[in-house]
Amino acid sequence: MTWTFSQRAQKLTSSAIREILKVTERPEVISFAGGLPSPATFPVERIRQACTDILASNPAAALQYGPTEGYLPLREWVAERYSVDGLRVSVDEVLITTGSQQGLDLLGKVLVDAGSRVLVETPTYLGALQAFSLSEPQFVSVPSDDEGAIPSRLTRELTDGARFMYCLPNFQNPTGRRLPIGRRRELTQVAGEAGVLLLEDDPYGALSYSGEQLPTLLSMNRQGVVHMGSFSKVLAPGLRVGYVIAPEKLLRKLVQAKQAADLHTPSFNQRIVHESIRDGFLDEHIPKIRALYGSQCGAMLDAMKQHFPAEVHWNEPQGGMFIWVKLPAHVDSSLLLEKAIAQNVAFVPGAPFFANEPQVNTLRLSFVTVPKEKIETGIAKLGQLLRMECARTPQ
Amino acid sequence: MTWTFSQRAQKLTSSAIREILKVTERPEVISFAGGLPSPATFPVERIRQACTDILASNPAAALQYGPTEGYLPLREWVAERYSVDGLRVSVDEVLITTGSQQGLDLLGKVLVDAGSRVLVETPTYLGALQAFSLSEPQFVSVPSDDEGAIPSRLTRELTDGARFMYCLPNFQNPTGRRLPIGRRRELTQVAGEAGVLLLEDDPYGALSYSGEQLPTLLSMNRQGVVHMGSFSKVLAPGLRVGYVIAPEKLLRKLVQAKQAADLHTPSFNQRIVHESIRDGFLDEHIPKIRALYGSQCGAMLDAMKQHFPAEVHWNEPQGGMFIWVKLPAHVDSSLLLEKAIAQNVAFVPGAPFFANEPQVNTLRLSFVTVPKEKIETGIAKLGQLLRMECARTPQ
Repeated sequence: MTWTFSQRAQKLTSSAIREILKVTERPEVISFAGGLPSPATFPVERIRQACTDILASNPAAALQYGPTEGYLPLREWVAERYSVDGLRVSVDEVLITTGSQQGLDLLGKVLVDAGSRVLVETPTYLGALQAFSLSEPQFVSVPSDDEGAIPSRLTRELTDGARFMYCLPNFQNPTGRRLPIGRRRELTQVAGEAGVLLLEDDPYGALSYSGEQLPTLLSMNRQGVVHMGSFSKVLAPGLRVGYVIAPEKLLRKLVQAKQAADLHTPSFNQRIVHESIRDGFLDEHIPKIRALYGSQCGAMLDAMKQHFPAEVHWNEPQGGMFIWVKLPAHVDSSLLLEKAIAQNVAFVPGAPFFANEPQVNTLRLSFVTVPKEKIETGIAKLGQLLRMECARTPQ
Repeated sequence: MTWTFSQRAQKLTSSAIREILKVTERPEVISFAGGLPSPATFPVERIRQACTDILASNPAAALQYGPTEGYLPLREWVAERYSVDGLRVSVDEVLITTGSQQGLDLLGKVLVDAGSRVLVETPTYLGALQAFSLSEPQFVSVPSDDEGAIPSRLTRELTDGARFMYCLPNFQNPTGRRLPIGRRRELTQVAGEAGVLLLEDDPYGALSYSGEQLPTLLSMNRQGVVHMGSFSKVLAPGLRVGYVIAPEKLLRKLVQAKQAADLHTPSFNQRIVHESIRDGFLDEHIPKIRALYGSQCGAMLDAMKQHFPAEVHWNEPQGGMFIWVKLPAHVDSSLLLEKAIAQNVAFVPGAPFFANEPQVNTLRLSFVTVPKEKIETGIAKLGQLLRMECARTPQ
């Protein structure tokens, strides 16, 4: 028996990162490659208590099919959480998703036709490229710098016919950069004038080390922005609960697409999340995550300053989980990775994060799950390799 | 701000059934419209114990991101469960999905291009039509009778260029019918010769009232059948855990599509399912579900015999959750539903289950969640309405 794959399936490839992660699961490897939150931040006891309470009070509903839109009290929590500083979000604008990755899948399905233009930052989140690619768009990379996408470069030539621009304004995966407030205002204005919908993906927004959060794009253009959030980085990713906030007419289409995709996000998990957070738990819990990640980030930055050669450049993130490293132009980070793995250190090469022209002299480091003494050891080894690579004559 | 929906989104509509269910949620309505399993069958204490054990033994893994393929011990359990009677299923052929609905979404994505032919039974499961419709296929209805699809009607004219045939051989939703063993053999042979992949969707197979189960299509053509299963009807649907068994090459594409769809099915839920069933629990639990549903089905059939007029016909299911009713040709069940709801009784009209020419004189009854005394009351009311409708002169 042979079968015919769809055209979109023929273009599908496995995430390069997932393949790397398999190699780096050996315990002797110091891996800066992961994108996982630290399990030290999972509120295990609270989740255990939530499970017990839910199964004691209303097990029939928690274990039964539920509405596609999501568990109403959780949708209400989200709507209320966002209804601050003059912004009003209605429960009818909130859809609970199976992780925010599903939000990307659903948005791709309802907004993208084969060949239609999708704008992305340079570089951008790989999982978004994968999700949208199933609808076979034409990706257009918006010129970006160390502060993120450059709004003034959103020319009509780029925006013409674009279905949306995908943005990750806070502590972006992979670069860790945050879009400054001035650019946020400019971006929402330029996109609004060009009639380009903005998708604002915000899994890391709460993880600002100083606690200072910038206003969302959503708050700047209520009808021109779709916002995606997640409980993966502030509670636990293994529950797979995220959400989309969108204008009602768009949300209704997303609900229809979700119904066909998985009927609804697990009833039990939505209740676990709601039961865990409804009394304001996140307001005490998130500062602990910020403190941990900020301290881990500081340790890595210190080690990098000590061990990396002068030709290597990196950003100093103010939040999130990642540091982005730029090597001299002649150093290919995927070749560097092979040598690093031979020395039991791993990272993620930057090339897969570029929708179009990959910058092979870039790489992503994650600092959140590695103990500090291993951060020091791993960065020292990487520094040694980098000094050798940088010293080689460009070929 | 306006935006452009994709072509597939423009064709999307909400499930007619979901809309009906909203109306019938009023407590005074006796609803035979639901497709929900009975919450009386949910093993609450066992699930509670599983949650406690998992969060005590390995919370970091249970709450963390996990592999897209699924939790290995659960995949092994599935592979082992199916490796009987000479059939061998390898763990590399098993993908855990977010409910079996997600299996349909992923299979549509990797196998269907716009305009390509997809064969379905007449009638068929509405959720499958919705999932596949996002890939914009041309649905072809395979002639079917009270025993299911008629294999001899799978002519070259029908199968030419078809990407697959979607089958629900056991106690089909909506008809409750089961494909006899002779037809299973004939179907796998005819489809194999025509080079048509069979998708075997099997959420209800275990719910045979007598306990007698027929061999799967998978066991009859190992390389020509993709099998989908679910824990929704034998454990609890609110956990959203299902699986796909497919030849490895196809499975790898499904894994890539799933990675883009939701990264993976919740780690926690996969462990809850595995922890609940690994010691053979289903072998003692499923007979209780069978007994309950068999008894409920019997009560509804008895009431129908007593109250329905002679012009109305229905099947007598040997398992599952549904009875399929055929009215005289001039009676439209959606008009009947309006009158029934006015009397606080509900059911699902049959028309939405037809991919092409709807038979409006059909309807689906579910008996599993309604107490027996209400089954009697509801069927009596429906019988009264039916006698009036059948007596009306065809217009």
